[in-house]
Amino acid sequence: MTFFPECPLPLDEYPRVLLAHGGGGRLTQNLIERVLLPSFDNPFLAPLHDGALLDVDGGRLAFTTDSYVVQPPFFPGGDIGRLAVFGTANDLAMCGARPLYLSCSLIIEEGLPMEDLWRVIVSMKEAAVEAGVQVVTGDSKVVERGKGDGVFINTAGIGAVLSGLDVGSQRVQPGDEIVLSGSLGRHGIAIMALREGLSLDAAIESDSAPVFPLVEALVDEGIDIHMLRDPTRGGVSSSLNEIAGKSGAGIVIEESRLPVGPEVQGVCEILGLDPLYVANEGNFLAFVGAGQGERAVEVLRGYSLGREAVVIGRAVEEHPGVVIMKTLIGGERIVDVMSGEQLPRIC
Amino acid sequence: MTFFPECPLPLDEYPRVLLAHGGGGRLTQNLIERVLLPSFDNPFLAPLHDGALLDVDGGRLAFTTDSYVVQPPFFPGGDIGRLAVFGTANDLAMCGARPLYLSCSLIIEEGLPMEDLWRVIVSMKEAAVEAGVQVVTGDSKVVERGKGDGVFINTAGIGAVLSGLDVGSQRVQPGDEIVLSGSLGRHGIAIMALREGLSLDAAIESDSAPVFPLVEALVDEGIDIHMLRDPTRGGVSSSLNEIAGKSGAGIVIEESRLPVGPEVQGVCEILGLDPLYVANEGNFLAFVGAGQGERAVEVLRGYSLGREAVVIGRAVEEHPGVVIMKTLIGGERIVDVMSGEQLPRIC
Repeated sequence: MTFFPECPLPLDEYPRVLLAHGGGGRLTQNLIERVLLPSFDNPFLAPLHDGALLDVDGGRLAFTTDSYVVQPPFFPGGDIGRLAVFGTANDLAMCGARPLYLSCSLIIEEGLPMEDLWRVIVSMKEAAVEAGVQVVTGDSKVVERGKGDGVFINTAGIGAVLSGLDVGSQRVQPGDEIVLSGSLGRHGIAIMALREGLSLDAAIESDSAPVFPLVEALVDEGIDIHMLRDPTRGGVSSSLNEIAGKSGAGIVIEESRLPVGPEVQGVCEILGLDPLYVANEGNFLAFVGAGQGERAVEVLRGYSLGREAVVIGRAVEEHPGVVIMKTLIGGERIVDVMSGEQLPRIC
Repeated sequence: MTFFPECPLPLDEYPRVLLAHGGGGRLTQNLIERVLLPSFDNPFLAPLHDGALLDVDGGRLAFTTDSYVVQPPFFPGGDIGRLAVFGTANDLAMCGARPLYLSCSLIIEEGLPMEDLWRVIVSMKEAAVEAGVQVVTGDSKVVERGKGDGVFINTAGIGAVLSGLDVGSQRVQPGDEIVLSGSLGRHGIAIMALREGLSLDAAIESDSAPVFPLVEALVDEGIDIHMLRDPTRGGVSSSLNEIAGKSGAGIVIEESRLPVGPEVQGVCEILGLDPLYVANEGNFLAFVGAGQGERAVEVLRGYSLGREAVVIGRAVEEHPGVVIMKTLIGGERIVDVMSGEQLPRIC
């Protein structure tokens, strides 16, 4: 190597990686957009957040990966194994693809109870059946005590893009209606309530679930889908900001339309969290053609997972790249990207 | 869930995961073959160690994954980033596939010097160019100090199976000649010498390198390849035992033919290691049709990476499933699977 390029992040400002570089907010965005993406610059990386679209041997495939480090690994409504299967299957669905095959790679900390590992594996197996995918290849590594944390799981996935479907931020345009398929923040709040030891009347369950059937139903109904995105780490606010930034469209959402369950709302108030920034694992945002939002909602409500679907806003020509919320009291405020590490290791 | 299946490993014997479950020896084999493989039982998992062969939209693809936890992350001849790119590209090559696309997922420990992360990313970028692959999708997570170890990297890969090529343990048959494309143990010994702080006249460099061009050359030359395998974790002994076990063939290798460099031999003697059990990252085993071994060697020696290629033995009808070595002093001994955690975190 004759020339070593300079790090695009100023090292005097960020000499070390911080937890916030993984929290889904502004520092995460910095790391991804300034360090990682430019390094591997190629036409596949740009258009979608959740995966790459590839033409291989005549087929159009989606390819995606995620590592799961959620803490604690077992929680109401799921566990790290279900999350690892559904999360990656959902990323494929967000590429407009039918999830087909997953890989599974484990990094296990020495001393993990074998029974915990077994619970996770059984859970992945069941989740794979539920999501209609096959785990076809894998790997396992063990690191010393204190060099890991129980178990980390990576899943990568391959899916087949649905015929005629073309989603990407470049297709977002003013007039698009923004549909949210389920209520906000259930995954993040399930984890946070558990971590904080909150004693609730009824445990809040993670919404962790496979969303592909809902995407397919929209396609079958002829809805013109321009963009899909599952608002996981960083929540709906981060997803919308990213889409606004990439597409150059402005986005307006209406607070009165945001579906937030009373239990989630209650815990958010106790912990000082905004549900717009909390991670979801079983819903998605769909940008659909002007005038198609209500029909999309109707389709989604035919599914138990989509029964809270709602149009939350639209893309506009004004304030390009910026997300604005019309508040309950009739004002407007900018919905910004989260700036700290509100919820580390949420997925 | 109404019925929770019992763990196939006796929990009283193995209540917790041990380092040896990741070292590439017998316990690793137990974990993979008794816990992981049966859980995800499907026709894709069985035939190959290194990846799955998939028919997607008319194309025949290979799909593989590996997580890299090597310690230390920077070593003579490479680093964790190069390893993550070449290792997964090589697994695709071992499926008989041209490596095309990689995913990259990072699990970073809070506090990692940003400069180290940057070095790893730059190294991955250069390695991807060298291996002819594109990194098309990725993920990054950050875990708290003391819950990780610098950086762990997962890469999954997609390759296109070379036309007419069909490799798998089911194709191994008595009479096959076994070609090894390069000398033994350089990766593992480079890491171990560094860890043990051995002061050597010249640092031993890892052999980490992309092997696909050598596989392609064999195919272009019309060599009938029955099985390919890169002897990484657990070394040549583990790979041969696995192939013998799966194919039901017996295997005989000749000690006099094993290529071991004098520096590697020296360090092995100091550390009490057997080069047959030490990890490699830039060579591979090819089982080729009877009578084709020497021609394969000739082809491989046309490449700088293959200049030490040699026929090390053959598959036989006798002692099915067992690997025998004819020793230098004219005896025979069984080459068994490694039983402990000789070399943890070697890749």
